[in-house]
Amino acid sequence: MELKVYVDRLSQPSRAIVIFCKVNKIDFEEVGIELLKGQHLTPEFKEINPMGKVPAIVVDGKFKLFESHAILIFLASAFPGVADHWYPADLYRRAEIHSILDWHHSNLRRGSIEFIQNTLLAPFFGRPLNPQAAAEGEKVLSSSLSKIEALWLKESGQFLLGSSQPSIADLCLVCEIMQLEFTDETDRNRILGPHKKIQQWIEDTKNATKPHFDEVHQALFAAKVKLQMQRK
Amino acid sequence: MELKVYVDRLSQPSRAIVIFCKVNKIDFEEVGIELLKGQHLTPEFKEINPMGKVPAIVVDGKFKLFESHAILIFLASAFPGVADHWYPADLYRRAEIHSILDWHHSNLRRGSIEFIQNTLLAPFFGRPLNPQAAAEGEKVLSSSLSKIEALWLKESGQFLLGSSQPSIADLCLVCEIMQLEFTDETDRNRILGPHKKIQQWIEDTKNATKPHFDEVHQALFAAKVKLQMQRK
Repeated sequence: MELKVYVDRLSQPSRAIVIFCKVNKIDFEEVGIELLKGQHLTPEFKEINPMGKVPAIVVDGKFKLFESHAILIFLASAFPGVADHWYPADLYRRAEIHSILDWHHSNLRRGSIEFIQNTLLAPFFGRPLNPQAAAEGEKVLSSSLSKIEALWLKESGQFLLGSSQPSIADLCLVCEIMQLEFTDETDRNRILGPHKKIQQWIEDTKNATKPHFDEVHQALFAAKVKLQMQRK
Repeated sequence: MELKVYVDRLSQPSRAIVIFCKVNKIDFEEVGIELLKGQHLTPEFKEINPMGKVPAIVVDGKFKLFESHAILIFLASAFPGVADHWYPADLYRRAEIHSILDWHHSNLRRGSIEFIQNTLLAPFFGRPLNPQAAAEGEKVLSSSLSKIEALWLKESGQFLLGSSQPSIADLCLVCEIMQLEFTDETDRNRILGPHKKIQQWIEDTKNATKPHFDEVHQALFAAKVKLQMQRK
């Protein structure tokens, strides 16, 4: 199976897919689509994903798919050799992972995007910063972190649902939280400080996917340094 | 398998699940959770779904699941006799359905909820109406309807992805659009008027799931009449 992966490593769902492919030794060609240069909005890219968003994949030159959760489920199901813990065959376990991923859309992800866009990134896409929207985003984000700790990290295992190995849900949610690296240290400490289990979970996910997790996040760290210099 | 389904038929994802069970002759007990009475926020219901939202299910008195897409996928997979078109076994077809359902969260659903909450329902939950948020919701909603027509209803079949029979994605998205029945006729005509394919698709989904579609939507029509009288 020939796999092309269209991503910007500054995008959290893009990173989840690249890490997943690398950890699972899935052969793929990475095609960079730079969001800050508007490459996701070109007619060429809209032939790949008409929604104009990354990540997207093309399989065997003809099957096109977008939405990161759908992509991860497809990759875990279609490529042989992906260990069961990433996307369990057991229907009950699988259902719980779907439930977390669905919840993610309107909670953790929504809060994180609203906060980061409105404290930092909006001007790069031609929009003004909106402090009120940032405050609302932070509220949703913090409440989402509390819910993850209370509901899904409370059991004995290191990962969501008390598992001893990560699933695609761990990867998606942790990559989302990593986006906070973009923000000021004060903001990050205020938001992540109270959540010790979340901090440990990020470390555990990094360790379970090393060295790919850190390697793929390098782009984020580099962009952050550049951004800080621009602001100074 | 013993199935309890916790729903409010005024909620669009709740209706999708009730219709799905009835069409597929899945035995279930329906437990009404009245949102307008705040029954979703009671400690008893939070034992079922700690997020305090409907729908939720309990299987065999112990397995609890929330998030409507995850529930539909689980029901289609765990109950024998559900026809393949609802949730195809083919990985490529399945991936496309996942993609539509994931897209739904931050597009059609988000627009629909923002519009209806802020033109109508917010006061019932102790919040003021917000015309600016309603206008933004309508924009997202209308753009989502255009995308559905352009991308997924363009092929020969009556249903999403050119299929001749409905999938769980058809059911979820059509139930979402039906929520517009709550709004004024002027609003509904302005929003749905330009979308002839969407109107036909709603009819086709009703027909493919009759008589259950109309029966389950009765609660919505009744609530609408009551609401109109209250406003007069």
